[in-house]
This record gives sequence, C-alpha cells and structure tokens, in this order.
Amino acid sequence: MPVDQGRLHRTLNPRTVVVVGDKGPNYQWLTNQKEFPGELYSVQLDPNEIKGIEERGFRNFLSLADVPGEIDLLICAVPRQVVPRIVADAVTRNVGGIAMYTAGFAETQEELGIELQARIVKMANDAGMPIVGPNCMGIYNRRLGIRFGSEMQHAEGGNVSFMSQSGSHAGGLTNDGQYAGLEITRTISMGNAAILNEADYIEYLAQDDDTQYIGIYIEGPRDGRRFFEGLREVTKHKPVVIFKGGSTDNGASAARTHTTSLATPQALWDAMVRQSGAIPVVTRDELIDTMAVLVKCPPAIGRRMALLAGSGGQSVAVSDSAGRAGLQMPRLSDASYDRLKEFFNVIGGSYFNPFDMGGTIAPTSARGSENNLQKILDILSEDGNLDAAIYELGVGGPGGRTDPERLTRTLDTIDAWRANSWQKPLLMVVHPGTNPEGYNLVRSALIERGYPVYPSFDRAAGAYSRAERYYATRAERTAK
Amino acid sequence: MPVDQGRLHRTLNPRTVVVVGDKGPNYQWLTNQKEFPGELYSVQLDPNEIKGIEERGFRNFLSLADVPGEIDLLICAVPRQVVPRIVADAVTRNVGGIAMYTAGFAETQEELGIELQARIVKMANDAGMPIVGPNCMGIYNRRLGIRFGSEMQHAEGGNVSFMSQSGSHAGGLTNDGQYAGLEITRTISMGNAAILNEADYIEYLAQDDDTQYIGIYIEGPRDGRRFFEGLREVTKHKPVVIFKGGSTDNGASAARTHTTSLATPQALWDAMVRQSGAIPVVTRDELIDTMAVLVKCPPAIGRRMALLAGSGGQSVAVSDSAGRAGLQMPRLSDASYDRLKEFFNVIGGSYFNPFDMGGTIAPTSARGSENNLQKILDILSEDGNLDAAIYELGVGGPGGRTDPERLTRTLDTIDAWRANSWQKPLLMVVHPGTNPEGYNLVRSALIERGYPVYPSFDRAAGAYSRAERYYATRAERTAK
Repeated sequence: MPVDQGRLHRTLNPRTVVVVGDKGPNYQWLTNQKEFPGELYSVQLDPNEIKGIEERGFRNFLSLADVPGEIDLLICAVPRQVVPRIVADAVTRNVGGIAMYTAGFAETQEELGIELQARIVKMANDAGMPIVGPNCMGIYNRRLGIRFGSEMQHAEGGNVSFMSQSGSHAGGLTNDGQYAGLEITRTISMGNAAILNEADYIEYLAQDDDTQYIGIYIEGPRDGRRFFEGLREVTKHKPVVIFKGGSTDNGASAARTHTTSLATPQALWDAMVRQSGAIPVVTRDELIDTMAVLVKCPPAIGRRMALLAGSGGQSVAVSDSAGRAGLQMPRLSDASYDRLKEFFNVIGGSYFNPFDMGGTIAPTSARGSENNLQKILDILSEDGNLDAAIYELGVGGPGGRTDPERLTRTLDTIDAWRANSWQKPLLMVVHPGTNPEGYNLVRSALIERGYPVYPSFDRAAGAYSRAERYYATRAERTAK
Repeated sequence: MPVDQGRLHRTLNPRTVVVVGDKGPNYQWLTNQKEFPGELYSVQLDPNEIKGIEERGFRNFLSLADVPGEIDLLICAVPRQVVPRIVADAVTRNVGGIAMYTAGFAETQEELGIELQARIVKMANDAGMPIVGPNCMGIYNRRLGIRFGSEMQHAEGGNVSFMSQSGSHAGGLTNDGQYAGLEITRTISMGNAAILNEADYIEYLAQDDDTQYIGIYIEGPRDGRRFFEGLREVTKHKPVVIFKGGSTDNGASAARTHTTSLATPQALWDAMVRQSGAIPVVTRDELIDTMAVLVKCPPAIGRRMALLAGSGGQSVAVSDSAGRAGLQMPRLSDASYDRLKEFFNVIGGSYFNPFDMGGTIAPTSARGSENNLQKILDILSEDGNLDAAIYELGVGGPGGRTDPERLTRTLDTIDAWRANSWQKPLLMVVHPGTNPEGYNLVRSALIERGYPVYPSFDRAAGAYSRAERYYATRAERTAK
C-alpha cells in the first residue's frame, strides 16, 4: 500500500527528533544527531542510561507521552520485544514516522522475529504510520545533520541520494561517495522494508528537489511492479544507478538470509532494469565510479575517447581497458598530427591516441614540460574527433613525482583547459601503485578540484561507458 | 635463432658490469648498480659527464678497450647513432652480453630507426652476442643488486621472475610485486626483443633454480612456436601468469606503435595460452593478484570457499564475487552449525557461509570477541566441506577499527589458525574505503605476516579461481 508522500516528507525532513532507547557507552543515536538544529529529545526508562544521556546534555523523558510538541521523526533503538509498545505510543502521539534501527525480526528466520514483524506491520498499516526498516540504519539528511555515522557530512547543498536495502552499504555508499567528492544529500537505509519499501522511496526521490542523482542498493524488491514503474519515470530526468545484490546463486542465497529477499531470476531482473532506463552495476565501487562521472562531468555523449598516459606499456593497457568497455579511440585529424609531430618526443613515446606523453612532458625533457602539455591539450580541444578524455597522472615510487609545486602547476594547466576549451567529460586515473602517500596527495588534490578519480583505467572506462549508455538510451526514449 | 643459454646465464648473472654512456644529472645506470658487489665501471668520453661520474666514485674509462678483465654485462645508454660502434667494440672485447636501454629503433616506425636496428641485429647474430632490448630497461637481479629502478630490492632469496615486453610494466610489475610482499628474483625488460626474445627467456627461466614462479607481460611474440613450446614445458613445474597487452582492437593498435608487435588474433592466442597450461590475465593488477595467491598459499585445490565478512550487505556482495568467479560456497556440516548456533549472534549476523561476524566478534559484543573468532575458525578447520577461505578485515572510517593492539591480537589469532589447523589457502581482503591511514596500517600488517591481500572480494575471488584452475589443469596433464 503506497504511503502518504506528505507524511514521508515530514519523516525525512523533521523539525523534531526523538530517540527512544539509546544506550551507552556511546549513545550513538543521540550523539549522531548532535548537530541537528531542530528539537532533539531522548526517551529512556533505565536510570543508568538516563544518567549518561543527561551528562551528555540531551533532554530525557520517561515516556513518549511526556515529550512536548509535535514529533516528526522517532528513532527506535529499543530491544525487539519492546517495539510493538513503542509503535503503539507513536501512533497515539501522532508521530510523523519512525526510523527503526532495532533488528531481530523476519530476517532471523526465527518464529519470534517473524511474528513480531507481522504485528508491527499491521499496526503501521492500520495507522498509516511510515516506518523505515526495521533492521536498518535509518536516514541520513545532509542539510539537517541527521546522521547514522560519524563520518557523514552536515552541510548545505548536495544532489545525490542513496537508498539501500543493506545498512552497511547505506553507510558505505554515503562514506565512499563523500570520499569520491560527491555531495550526498540523503541516504535511506531500507532494511527489511516491511512497511515503507523501495517503491515508496523511489516515488519520493523522483519529486524531491534536493535529489538530482539516485543510487540504489537492492537485494529483492517488495513491490517490483510499482518500483519499476517509478524507475521508468524518474530515469527520464534523473540518472539512477542500481547495484543488485544476489545476482549469482551464491549471492541470492546470502540475500535470503540477510534481508529475507526472494530471488528474482537474474535474466528477468536485467531485462527490467534495462527497460527502466536505469544503469545496472554489480559492485559498490562501480556504483560510486559511475555516479562520479554522472555528477562531475557534462553529459557523456559519444564513445570517441582520447586516452592520455605516461608510458608505452600503460598506453597498451589503457587501450585494452577502453576496448573492453566498448569505447573507441579514434585517430585525430591530419592537421592535429601535423602540429603534434613538431614537438612530440617519439623516442619512447607516441601521439596516435593513446598519448604516451612521458618523455614529452617530463620536467627533465629537453623539449619543455608544461608548455608541451598545454600544446597537446589545445590540439585535443580543437580536434573534432573526440567526445571525452581519460587522463592518467603518474605518482611514481616513494619520493616520486609528487613535488607539490609541480603538481599544482600541472593541475592548474589541466583545470584551465577543462573549463575553458575542452568542456567535455574528463576522467582522471591515479594508480595506487607502491607509494600510498603520493597516491593520497595526488588523489586528494584532484578530488578537491572536482574531478572524478579512478584507481585504474578499467574502472574509469567502465564508468564512462555506463554513463554514455544512460544518456544514449534517454535520448532514444525522449525521441519516441 | 636460439641463443647460447650459458652465455645468457653469464649476462644475467654478471661479475663485471660496464655502463656505457651514462649521463647527468642523475647517472641513473651507474647509481642503480651502486650496491652491485662485483666490478662496476663506466665508459664515457664527454669530459663534463666524466667529472660527475668520478665525483660519485665510479671508475671511468675513455673506451671499452681500456676496461680491465672480463666484461660480463654491458649496459648501453648511448644515443642510437652510436650504438653500432658500441656493439662492435663489445664483440671485439668478447663481452658476455648487452642490456640496451637506448631507444629510437624500429618502434619509431621511422626509416633511420628501422635501419639502425637491422644493423645491430646482424652484428649480434653474426657474433652470437646476446642483447636484451633495445628500447628496454635491461635486467634486474635481486641477489646481485643489479637494478633499473631505485625501489628494487637488493637482497638474498626470491622466487618470482618477470619478463616484460614493456619497460614500464617491467618496473611496475617488480615494484607492485614487492609491494604485495613478493620476492622478485629477476626481471627482464625485453623491449623490442630484436635479438633475444621471449622464447630465449622462457627457456632460461625454466631451468633457473632461482625462479619458481614466472610472470610475463607480452604484446606479441617474436617466435611464437618456440615460446609456446617452452611454456608448455615449464608450466608442468612452475606456474606462469601471462598478461597479454593488445587483446582488443584498440590495444592491438597501440601495441603496434609501442613495440612493433603484430597482432595475433585474440581467439587463437587464448587457445594457445590455454593449451600451454599458463594462467591468462588481462591487467597488471590481475597478474600480481594471481601471483600472490600462488606464492603465499598452499596449492589451490578445490573451489569450496568459506567467506568471512563483517556485515550483511558485504556478505551478499562477497557471495556474488565468489559466484562471478565460479567459486562455490558450500553449507557446513550439521555438526558445525550445531556448534555455531551456541554462541553466534544472529541479530544482524549470520553463519550459513558467508559468515557475517560483525556482531559476534566486535569488542563491544556482549558475547566476547577474540574467543568467538577463535571458535569460528576452529569449526572451519574441522569441517570437511571447505577448500579455502577469503576473509575481509574491516578498517572503519577515520579513527575506526585500527587500534594497533586489537589488530595485533586479531592477527595473532588468525596467524596461529592458518599455521596450525587450517593449512589451506587463506586470502585476505582490506577495502581501501575512506580511511587511507587505517587501510595502510592493516594492509601493511597483513603483508608483513605473509598474506596475499586484495582491495576487493572480486579481486581475491578472481585470483583464487585462476590459481585453482592452474592446479586442476596441471593435475589433468600429469595424469595423462
């Protein structure tokens, strides 16, 4: 039964939050909300816990009935046996909705858990009460600082929303996404999705102004028909990347244990995703990789890539990566080659695409360095045969090519090119190699400047290819 | 024409090394050999360079004729026009062999380069002179400290040898391999393979006592028939992992430019590799990944895996990784489950394989931590349904689960189990996540203790699967 979207909106964007049943030593649910600018209260009966809660400056009540004013969101962390009582109180208090962290329900495959879940579902349905979960991490709201992990940012802005049937992937996608330089505006940990399910959430995110891109982790939909209908609509305007857990027999079996998801035959699932216009991926890394190119680049239109790397062996490897991802590496125009051959160092290098630039842009090169890089980039901008570029920056070994001054100079050159004359997708690759400090330095600098960054050419090429297919499909659907 | 293997042995294991034509500011070829315990001389005519060479403590001569004693290896770094003269001098001096760094030959596709290479090939063939290269990084010998990169280790021991048609992959494989905790005993950078080629090297490594495992990067063989014959022989005793560059149209085109390799139709290549008993891979990461499980684990016999992870979402993901790699995840025996259910925390966890152990081994678990881990591991050892295990260690976010004392305790528990009762392949996964310091700490500790370590379950499962297929094929071939 579809939920009331207005009430769901109230739950996901609360002005008053009450945490019921938080516990020491960490009081994670209260502590995670400490930057929330609205009203935040605790409900806890245990005197030992109340002491810790009040010492940390949170206002505690002995029952939900005592909490003043309207309550928009209740975070439920009580033991499972107590949950029906809390839901009843929430209904009485006309709480907006509940994020139910408590686990131990149908996912245990035990009689008690199954029976408890059935009672809660009935109560929620009777009262029209939206419940996120149970067996979940609840919700993250960047703007409001409602969090379920200490790494999650509290800030204005944001345009990416995640929904995840796994609590650890909900946290992992948010943290990995932030680490990749994305601004995650909302994350919904769906858990058992016993009341609210993936169809309710996709309908919500479709009309949510804060959400321009959607990432989904799902093991099995509760209401597949409505979910795919929702997907088909939203993908016309907002790209959706969908990571399916349980796509193999092994995984499907694990998913049954994890969230009681029944297996959808994989071929059927693949067909439904394809028809929905969403972008399918098979790992969490692929989801973040794809999101980074969608969010940080102009739309990926066309498969004709320029590949730039620093050595010959790498040039072959990157060409193979592009080939495996179904990308093309066109030759440039004759005019471009005439210009390149005037200065390009072909001894141990090559400029036919891929560009093996090591000897041409090295600072020790007799033929200059940044100037040569600038010339190569200008030629690429002016050549009509290219749709996008993937560029590998070398890190070198310990003490390698990570001189901060040189790095800044190179990045300034690339930045200006991207903004002023290239104006097409540009993906950066930094291989972790054997120099973790250098890798972190270069990677962080690129993230800081807003690039999508990948640890291998295969991952960059795969991400671009998936984004390109999304825009091509969307254009075909719009043309119909 | 096959080279004299005794003379090749002398070249690769020299007692006297002469560097001809090294240059400032770094004098990389002399500097890289500074730990070589044999005789090391320089030959250089340019007074400006001689000054720098002598200031660094190297003994310089104005011509090869002046160098005293027998010369086993000549490292040639002169400009390409001078190379024929140096080869002639080397023939006169009866030098053992040459490592020819100089580039600018046939790979440039320019007339001058092609003609120069043809002259050198004729001279070498007439004199039976083994030449590594040209257009290469020469040779690395761990025991002798003969190096072409400053990261390369000088030490006793070692059992892995690499040969690479790309200079950057020759260095990259060596450095990446060392970083993965492998001991690389030799690396040969084949370059244009104009005189010595892959067939000569594989025949050498087949009978080399220092070489127990072989990794190859190749774009196109010069003498495919002899190479595959050699491969078929050596793989009966020594695992060989072979990374082919140019396996796609894009890559093949880049390979033509890089090392003038003509494309082998990929289907034919795949069939030949399969028949040879070697292990095919498509990236450098895959080569190192596969080598790590071969070298650091007992032989991979059987596909029945135990997968251990710390969260439910990860459990599904790792099961899918195993499924994609063609691995099985058997249920354990009923006796094992009877023991597990006595203490395993199933609320937010599961023990059906994969093991979702988070709540059971967390230090905050009411049910204990290391003791529970020990119990789980003991049950796995005693269960008859398992051939190998992949274990993911969590790192957590910044300030996460990287308390050094707890890490040491956990690793001591796992170490003792691996050595005393498990005695089967054990692969470790540490996801880089969002905590680079924590990642490096945990990863380094595992490498230090001799584990094969992977940044994702997909990479671990793929590596195990390839190793397993090698041993299965080898057993079938031996049985015939």
